Amino acid sequence: MQNFNYHVPTKILFGKDKVADTAKEIKAHGSRVLLTYGGGSVKRIGLYDQVVKQLKENDLFFVELPGIQPNPRVTSVRDGVKLCRENNIDFILAIGGGSVIDASKAIAAAVNYEGDAWDFPMQKARVENPLPLGTVLTLAATGSEMNGNAVITNEETQEKRGMGSPLLVPKFSVLDPTYTFSVNQYHTAAGTVDIMSHIFENYFAPGEGTFVQDTIAESILKTCIKYGPIALEEPENYEARANLLWAGSLALNGLTLTGKKTGDWATHGIEHEVSAIYDLTHGAGLAIIHPVWMQYVLNEETAPKFAQMARNVWKVEEPDDRKAAEKGINAVRAFFNSLGMPATLSEAQIPGDHFDEMGKKACIFGKIGSFRRLDAEDVVAILKRAL
Amino acid sequence: MQNFNYHVPTKILFGKDKVADTAKEIKAHGSRVLLTYGGGSVKRIGLYDQVVKQLKENDLFFVELPGIQPNPRVTSVRDGVKLCRENNIDFILAIGGGSVIDASKAIAAAVNYEGDAWDFPMQKARVENPLPLGTVLTLAATGSEMNGNAVITNEETQEKRGMGSPLLVPKFSVLDPTYTFSVNQYHTAAGTVDIMSHIFENYFAPGEGTFVQDTIAESILKTCIKYGPIALEEPENYEARANLLWAGSLALNGLTLTGKKTGDWATHGIEHEVSAIYDLTHGAGLAIIHPVWMQYVLNEETAPKFAQMARNVWKVEEPDDRKAAEKGINAVRAFFNSLGMPATLSEAQIPGDHFDEMGKKACIFGKIGSFRRLDAEDVVAILKRAL
Repeated sequence: MQNFNYHVPTKILFGKDKVADTAKEIKAHGSRVLLTYGGGSVKRIGLYDQVVKQLKENDLFFVELPGIQPNPRVTSVRDGVKLCRENNIDFILAIGGGSVIDASKAIAAAVNYEGDAWDFPMQKARVENPLPLGTVLTLAATGSEMNGNAVITNEETQEKRGMGSPLLVPKFSVLDPTYTFSVNQYHTAAGTVDIMSHIFENYFAPGEGTFVQDTIAESILKTCIKYGPIALEEPENYEARANLLWAGSLALNGLTLTGKKTGDWATHGIEHEVSAIYDLTHGAGLAIIHPVWMQYVLNEETAPKFAQMARNVWKVEEPDDRKAAEKGINAVRAFFNSLGMPATLSEAQIPGDHFDEMGKKACIFGKIGSFRRLDAEDVVAILKRAL
Repeated sequence: MQNFNYHVPTKILFGKDKVADTAKEIKAHGSRVLLTYGGGSVKRIGLYDQVVKQLKENDLFFVELPGIQPNPRVTSVRDGVKLCRENNIDFILAIGGGSVIDASKAIAAAVNYEGDAWDFPMQKARVENPLPLGTVLTLAATGSEMNGNAVITNEETQEKRGMGSPLLVPKFSVLDPTYTFSVNQYHTAAGTVDIMSHIFENYFAPGEGTFVQDTIAESILKTCIKYGPIALEEPENYEARANLLWAGSLALNGLTLTGKKTGDWATHGIEHEVSAIYDLTHGAGLAIIHPVWMQYVLNEETAPKFAQMARNVWKVEEPDDRKAAEKGINAVRAFFNSLGMPATLSEAQIPGDHFDEMGKKACIFGKIGSFRRLDAEDVVAILKRAL
């Protein structure tokens, strides 16, 4: 087990009607709020009205940044920064899924920074003195509600890049499973894949002796395997939605990474290149690429860990590591497909004509991945196999 | 799944030599330190010298409260409060195991309180404005390094009572597995039992639909079952000590309680009455009483949860819930005994002549337990079966 620091100060308010405490939580940090959200869903489910009513009743000044899109754009971030500066905003409240939360973090980082918001994803600036933020989550997927990371897209350069800082960890996050009742089958499936993919990124990573972390990771995978299909069948099944929602936060709050050298994150890197150009739903892209990545990096050295997943999570009974690993990877692919996710890029209407560019951009800062190091050629090979 | 709040702001510094950051962490909160510890072990392993050197090099004023005993006494707490007031202490650094940390929390709570420190365990006062504290942990067991709870003994009245507040959650905790290398076999075993017992208290509790929490709880049990025996055989096995240490924190930082109505805690309550009088090692007392409690509360209603543990943790393959439950409980008892823990109170030299008094005191605030409610007569019956 490697040395680590673990610090997740986010206050989680979990359960039905917990949004009622939002204004109280905001007041501990600020009084002038930027309210960020996406499309119409937060209005359709009544969440927007509830939050606005509370802000007004508590005399909290607020301005709004609506219309944040999936794969959130740096242009939205710049709009938010402008609004914050013009209105002396001292707190950001994000209501939505990962895209809204990620955009809000990028805004929070840039408000007190003189340069451009895109400097952070491009590793040209370090986050210092950001605005505090809170979230009201509406999708089980991202994990962004309990960590300091964000992924932002630059539509001009067709780049999608990550940024992060412990200073961007939300002060609080409201997790009410009933807000996820109206998430459709496609996005419920994509969210479930996203949670599992976050676990994979830290589970298939170098480092030994992390038994407690790995068994916890396996617990979260089992939760997704149990409740993903139930949530698709019965969208208002509270137990299923609640387990997925809490699993999503625990999957990416650093817990399963403790004691590891670093996560792998090659699959996310590759998927980001695809969805930067084609605006594919992140979870759908991961459903295509993660099994292909697994097969690509499978060798004598990596087989034991894939076999461990196969036996502990998918109940594969096969003594040979290599064979067990193959069965485990097939089980992952079959499960994603059973949720209705696409199996190939072609199935998602994505052609192969930008693969070289994607490979180059994925490795813009050098090789990616830690479980097995990958260069631009590897990325192209993976994309071709995913076609 | 029940609604819940989850907020664990403790910064964990985990791994070899992480103690080097202690002074830096203290400085974020204070500059005049009360250094608390127990007997000679922190000096024997060189930890005391390391900490003192750091405090001096960083110009941090400090006074010491040594000699905090296992099952920490309210008299030590009162001594600590006096020291803090006399020296304008603004931060407490606890170096040791659960007893030292618990006493330090009780001191932190009482320094700015006008009444007596025993008022908190007796539920006569509420914690407000405590001193901040940090810990350097030397035993895998307590969980106190990552929660706001403490257990204090009043030697005059022979009472051992819990107290707690979110305000008493340590600001940081240093967890270096090498500090646990010198823990002897008996205390390593007792610590392992303590971790498992903390899991049991929240696992066998009312509430349904907590799959993700329960599978995580099972992960922590599996960790103890795997590494407890290794740590006994090879006291300097870093992997074993590291997994037990992190498992101990995760077992009682609230994670496995999320979504439950409340934990059970009857076994801890009963054990506290035994060790309040006989000064038995807490984990040894739990090793005796927890299996007896399980057998006592086993009925048609509770059998499915015991069967779940039996199948998921102890690999019992038995379709009948009642029979599986029996096998699981026997497995728990056999495992504790395999670690060298006593199986009965008699074996631990504890006679039956105070049972009525223990029963009465355990229920001083009413019935105990939540998985099955127990009155004083039940407590006496459990103690008799444990004899």
